[in-house]
Amino acid sequence: MTEIIETADGAVDTLALASRLSDGHIADNVEILNQLDVDDAAAVLVLLPVEMSVQILDKPELNFGAEILAALPRQTATILVSGMSADMAADLVQQLDEPARSELMEGLDAATRATIQDLLSYPENTAGAIMTTEFVSVPATWTVERTLQHIRQVERTRETVYAIYVLDAYTRRLVGAVSLRRLIAGEPSDNIMSLAVREPITTSPLVDREDVARLISKHDLLAVPVIDKAGHVLGIATVDDIIDTIIAENTEDVQKFGGMEATDEPYLQVGLPGMIRKRGGWLCILFLGEMLTASAMQHFEGELEKAIVLTLFIPLIMSSGGNSGSQATSLLIRALALREVKLGDWWRVALRELPTGLILGTMLGVIGVVRVVAWQKLGIYDYGEHWLLVALTVAAALIGVVTFGSVAGSMLPFILQRAGFDPASASAPFVATLVDVTGLMIYFSVALLILSGTLL
Amino acid sequence: MTEIIETADGAVDTLALASRLSDGHIADNVEILNQLDVDDAAAVLVLLPVEMSVQILDKPELNFGAEILAALPRQTATILVSGMSADMAADLVQQLDEPARSELMEGLDAATRATIQDLLSYPENTAGAIMTTEFVSVPATWTVERTLQHIRQVERTRETVYAIYVLDAYTRRLVGAVSLRRLIAGEPSDNIMSLAVREPITTSPLVDREDVARLISKHDLLAVPVIDKAGHVLGIATVDDIIDTIIAENTEDVQKFGGMEATDEPYLQVGLPGMIRKRGGWLCILFLGEMLTASAMQHFEGELEKAIVLTLFIPLIMSSGGNSGSQATSLLIRALALREVKLGDWWRVALRELPTGLILGTMLGVIGVVRVVAWQKLGIYDYGEHWLLVALTVAAALIGVVTFGSVAGSMLPFILQRAGFDPASASAPFVATLVDVTGLMIYFSVALLILSGTLL
Repeated sequence: MTEIIETADGAVDTLALASRLSDGHIADNVEILNQLDVDDAAAVLVLLPVEMSVQILDKPELNFGAEILAALPRQTATILVSGMSADMAADLVQQLDEPARSELMEGLDAATRATIQDLLSYPENTAGAIMTTEFVSVPATWTVERTLQHIRQVERTRETVYAIYVLDAYTRRLVGAVSLRRLIAGEPSDNIMSLAVREPITTSPLVDREDVARLISKHDLLAVPVIDKAGHVLGIATVDDIIDTIIAENTEDVQKFGGMEATDEPYLQVGLPGMIRKRGGWLCILFLGEMLTASAMQHFEGELEKAIVLTLFIPLIMSSGGNSGSQATSLLIRALALREVKLGDWWRVALRELPTGLILGTMLGVIGVVRVVAWQKLGIYDYGEHWLLVALTVAAALIGVVTFGSVAGSMLPFILQRAGFDPASASAPFVATLVDVTGLMIYFSVALLILSGTLL
Repeated sequence: MTEIIETADGAVDTLALASRLSDGHIADNVEILNQLDVDDAAAVLVLLPVEMSVQILDKPELNFGAEILAALPRQTATILVSGMSADMAADLVQQLDEPARSELMEGLDAATRATIQDLLSYPENTAGAIMTTEFVSVPATWTVERTLQHIRQVERTRETVYAIYVLDAYTRRLVGAVSLRRLIAGEPSDNIMSLAVREPITTSPLVDREDVARLISKHDLLAVPVIDKAGHVLGIATVDDIIDTIIAENTEDVQKFGGMEATDEPYLQVGLPGMIRKRGGWLCILFLGEMLTASAMQHFEGELEKAIVLTLFIPLIMSSGGNSGSQATSLLIRALALREVKLGDWWRVALRELPTGLILGTMLGVIGVVRVVAWQKLGIYDYGEHWLLVALTVAAALIGVVTFGSVAGSMLPFILQRAGFDPASASAPFVATLVDVTGLMIYFSVALLILSGTLL
């Protein structure tokens, strides 16, 4: 990576840096600007060629894009925003504080302003919010030659020209789509509809961006048109927006599975108060849930006092249930997300998890028995005169807890989806808490059953 | 979704189904074929137009593609494989058993066979293994017009024609890349190099597919050329392969974070023995690690007997440490994967997790004290004469355990990456086990410190 150039007094030499960046790749320049503070980054942007500055602001990887925009001279900001792709411009404008936001909007030409306002009206994370309005559309009456001529003229102002949308000449409704590769292979004098795919794949502005990603990935598209109810094209969602979407959704999924709210910003940019907010809420909820274990143990206090040896295995047995539950939940979260499994398959899944849990629990139970017998026989620890019954209790509890963990962990994502939540909201700590409380009850019940009359 | 058509005796009416599918979208047809058994799917493929059957086999979403290929008449299989994109053909051929594999390879023409053999020589999950050899390359001496003519001729046999690679006319080394959009906007008589980007972004065949995905996503490319050391283009990795890669890697990451080995197949297709293998190994390892909790508790048995009240809070305190650790690990796994944080940033992260953990631990500590005080005062449970000291012990232990969990959980992905492993191998159950054992030690140490002379 290019070293940041500093002047003798340690300040960033923006002139030298701008000169160096002007030969670089956009994505690399974004990484370098991300290391500068906002004012230096703005100073460099002013010095770069306008086209490059526009492309830099267009990259979602640029941190503090809105702050940089606010630090730019207003006229420069207006010029750059006018050049940006409409979806990214709307994103940045949305992040601006007042009065910078209104000032910038006033400086824009009426068409750009209207486009940005339209895009801002769609809820976050929908097709409408990620789509761009810079696409190529032509009337169904045009020839291949005329379409190609049109593309040559508008090519530089469109996010993609690889998909061309054909509109009815009167109603302007979408009637077909042509890929550029088919277009250049066509006869120049042919009508454009002779090459078009009729009934192309489309989506609606309020569809979740995750579903748009699934559509593009399923059909290997470069872009999908977003249409209104009448069939007019409002914009297109392109494959590079979709990749950004998939990556962002993954980050959310992993963080949620880790037992916290998803952060929207890179780790090092989330402040301490923000971090506490994202993590503290769930941590407290889980803590309150886990308090039931203390209540359960209070309930069995008499047994605990009689057989202190039972307490030794509590963490071991509880964690095994949590672990098997976490495995099952991770499997089902992805299986549901990838549509490998549908809501109605829940009983097939339960019927698979039941034997899986029984076998896994038996494996751990055998190891547990070996441990107790070995420690007893080797004289490492004395589990008392009923040590064999203790070993049996541990093994039976493990089978019960691991089986319960597998089944409960696999059912949780279904229950969430059925209740209208994202199945990916099921987290490993949540499953563990669920299984911990039940696991304790299973353990003590098994102990009462096996040890009644001897230890208890 | 299209209902599967059955004849009067309940068998699948392949003829009627094929006739219906021939009008459908490829991706939808794949979903329908996925619901059939292998022989029926093969029977339908034989009846479909060759071009559609080729495209269906080309979709990575088709389950049992290799089994279907093996069930086809050999001549049909050969024709379809010859038409497939080379990377997918190599994937399917690799999954075939002998002798079907050799028989199929023998039936192919020499060029296709050689291409497939080349692709099979690259290790799994590398750029070489996911690349396709069907790209457009032209000598640097050609004009725009001649290049366009060439593209028109070869368009149907290339996976993408949107990126055109320019090779030195003599050495055949890569000297530039042109996008189709720029090409059609160029003057027909101009030399192709006048439009080309020199020093295009490239990758090497042994680069991990995850890094290729990162490159394509970072630079918003539709394809990236894979070159050998001399600069010859071996193939290209395209954006739709990359989306499949990102989705597959995500599934692996979530499953590994859930504490198991990644499954390569959809949930319902993993057999019981396979499922036990993927989950049992880690479950046993975690169980063996967690056994240390039993050892720790045996060590403190004397204290436990004196103060049985301490055991009541063991699950609560341990799980809080595991939960905060799981949060921190999920944050750092993604931050490292997205390159938001580098290996050298570990101390900055530790310095952030320390206050975060202290604050979160204090929050839980306060709730814990409230619980003990409330239960005591409301007469729900009697924690003994030293109940205030017990509450203090619980609070202090929570602060210690949650802080340790946050710091340890955040450092684990760094340690794994430093040791040459994937940071995403850090799992929630693994962190929980790590924190459980240490958490017990912290709890008992705090108890000895606070309760010595009173309860202990």
